[in-house]
Amino acid sequence: MPELRRDPVVGYWTIISTERSRRPVEFRKGEIVEERSCPFCAGKEGETTHEVYAVRGEGSKPDSPDWDVRVILSKAPILPQEEVLDRCGEGMYDLMKGVGVHEIVVETPKHQHDLDELGPDQLEKVIRTYVHRINELEKDPRFKYVLLFKNHGLISGSARDVIRHSRSQLLAIPITPKRVKEELAAAKSYFERRERCVFCDILRQEAGEGSRIVSENASFFAFCPFASRAPFETWILPKKHCADFGKCPPSDFRDLGAVLKDCLGKIRVLLNDPPYNMILHTAPYRHKKKEIYWKTIEEDTHWYFQISPRLTHDAGFEWGTGIHINPTPPEDAALLLRETDAAVT
Amino acid sequence: MPELRRDPVVGYWTIISTERSRRPVEFRKGEIVEERSCPFCAGKEGETTHEVYAVRGEGSKPDSPDWDVRVILSKAPILPQEEVLDRCGEGMYDLMKGVGVHEIVVETPKHQHDLDELGPDQLEKVIRTYVHRINELEKDPRFKYVLLFKNHGLISGSARDVIRHSRSQLLAIPITPKRVKEELAAAKSYFERRERCVFCDILRQEAGEGSRIVSENASFFAFCPFASRAPFETWILPKKHCADFGKCPPSDFRDLGAVLKDCLGKIRVLLNDPPYNMILHTAPYRHKKKEIYWKTIEEDTHWYFQISPRLTHDAGFEWGTGIHINPTPPEDAALLLRETDAAVT
Repeated sequence: MPELRRDPVVGYWTIISTERSRRPVEFRKGEIVEERSCPFCAGKEGETTHEVYAVRGEGSKPDSPDWDVRVILSKAPILPQEEVLDRCGEGMYDLMKGVGVHEIVVETPKHQHDLDELGPDQLEKVIRTYVHRINELEKDPRFKYVLLFKNHGLISGSARDVIRHSRSQLLAIPITPKRVKEELAAAKSYFERRERCVFCDILRQEAGEGSRIVSENASFFAFCPFASRAPFETWILPKKHCADFGKCPPSDFRDLGAVLKDCLGKIRVLLNDPPYNMILHTAPYRHKKKEIYWKTIEEDTHWYFQISPRLTHDAGFEWGTGIHINPTPPEDAALLLRETDAAVT
Repeated sequence: MPELRRDPVVGYWTIISTERSRRPVEFRKGEIVEERSCPFCAGKEGETTHEVYAVRGEGSKPDSPDWDVRVILSKAPILPQEEVLDRCGEGMYDLMKGVGVHEIVVETPKHQHDLDELGPDQLEKVIRTYVHRINELEKDPRFKYVLLFKNHGLISGSARDVIRHSRSQLLAIPITPKRVKEELAAAKSYFERRERCVFCDILRQEAGEGSRIVSENASFFAFCPFASRAPFETWILPKKHCADFGKCPPSDFRDLGAVLKDCLGKIRVLLNDPPYNMILHTAPYRHKKKEIYWKTIEEDTHWYFQISPRLTHDAGFEWGTGIHINPTPPEDAALLLRETDAAVT
């Protein structure tokens, strides 16, 4: 079973998949998985695990075809669901039995490649599903964080994903990742000094300056961040302060769908359907309400989507310093994206 | 000119290369640079910038062919050398004019692909050159850190490097990167609690346990770390505590060359010449000797080389959490590497 192992120096965690241990012969250069028949299309429900949740036609049965959005468990979960959480030491090292829930959100019953190809009603259902599952997973007290992410057209593991069917992934995990803690601590420290949310301040500065705006509607604001690590990196924030994506009001789902569709469409058209990651940044689950750390979290953090086209590759400099090199200034990226017509062709 | 821009939330720095701004059309999928005539071979000195330093035959002139190791400036430096360091704010954002020295260490006059193909005398000269350049660059008070790194056969930027001539890079920069600061702070905090260097403790545990050892000689120890983020990741540490690579005694150069040759040879043979990164972790330059932060640095940090074969690809989960998924347990990786005969064929 997978182990979560902690580096004894800096404290990052690694998931060591002892179960599906990869031998050298399995790391083949440029391995491409052949395009197979798509298991995510309507009518292929028997090829996936049983559904966990679906937005489906009234009276239709689980695992039958009449659905709009469908959530299933991953067949190759990053962490297994059934293990009992167990922490222990090994000399100076710390390890934990991995435990988690790894779900796939199939975003359309049709064989469509990306979110921006979906219509407004369908997008609303997708957002509703994200919010619903994140709130459902919160009920399990073992989990401290849930990550919603999307790997579009991306090399992941050693194989390039060639099933061109729009989907995202949800992973509930028993730890708050170091990256998330850092962001929370930084936002908290900013708030302590100024009594203002750092993300609300960023929104104000970006709206005033204008040069990095990508898209905007009544409830959401999309821009290329000042210190973008990836060319054409885009953040989408709710204009109204909100720490938890799970508390996004249903009246905002349509606007969120619209801004996602617009940003992803512009990226697809301008950059010729590049691979990208989309990640949701949101507050962690807070089961122990009394924890001092969480006292001001609803004021000091702010959920957002980060879209990072993967056009460059990290090498020794990035790994050694943590400093990314971005060859496209965000002002140029935003201008090009603003000028791009995202209309689906 | 490139700007160093600081993220206002977490505080990471990004280098925005405003000079060579990349337009969308330049990000082409799978772009491969054609194999060209190699500018790093002996006799091609006219095709590079003037040499900064060389280990060369007595009486031979700079930029003439009679050399063993040659250091030149990068033709496409990550940061330019001539700028004046200048810090300023832009609303809530911080930025700095980039300034740095970016050198290429050409490790052999022959068209050889990797360090492990070099003989012991040549390797000794390579190590001597690393140490010499790092100590020379320290004399410039603008620089806080120098990163020594190697991108072997790696996709870097958007093009795959196809000049198969062994070389490393040195980049002196005016900031201490966040990643380095974190490692230093963690090592310091460990030392404060225990009065022992965390890396010396790791060495003791690894030597005692034995399951993750890759290679060893009188002065150096190589192993796959407990929480390896990459399959077959290998660290090489001096057995005798030492914070600064620049203070590595010349009597150790031969042993360091031997352990590098052994580890890189094993990786090449076992994994069929995979792309890899090699990074040197060492203490930062300490111009302000009185800084409280540096008070115990010579006791609490420990230089090491990190070799990370690039066999997997990060995607949304890794970006969102900072947690890497490693499909090969370090115990399996070390066993396979130990059993591999690195003899150059």
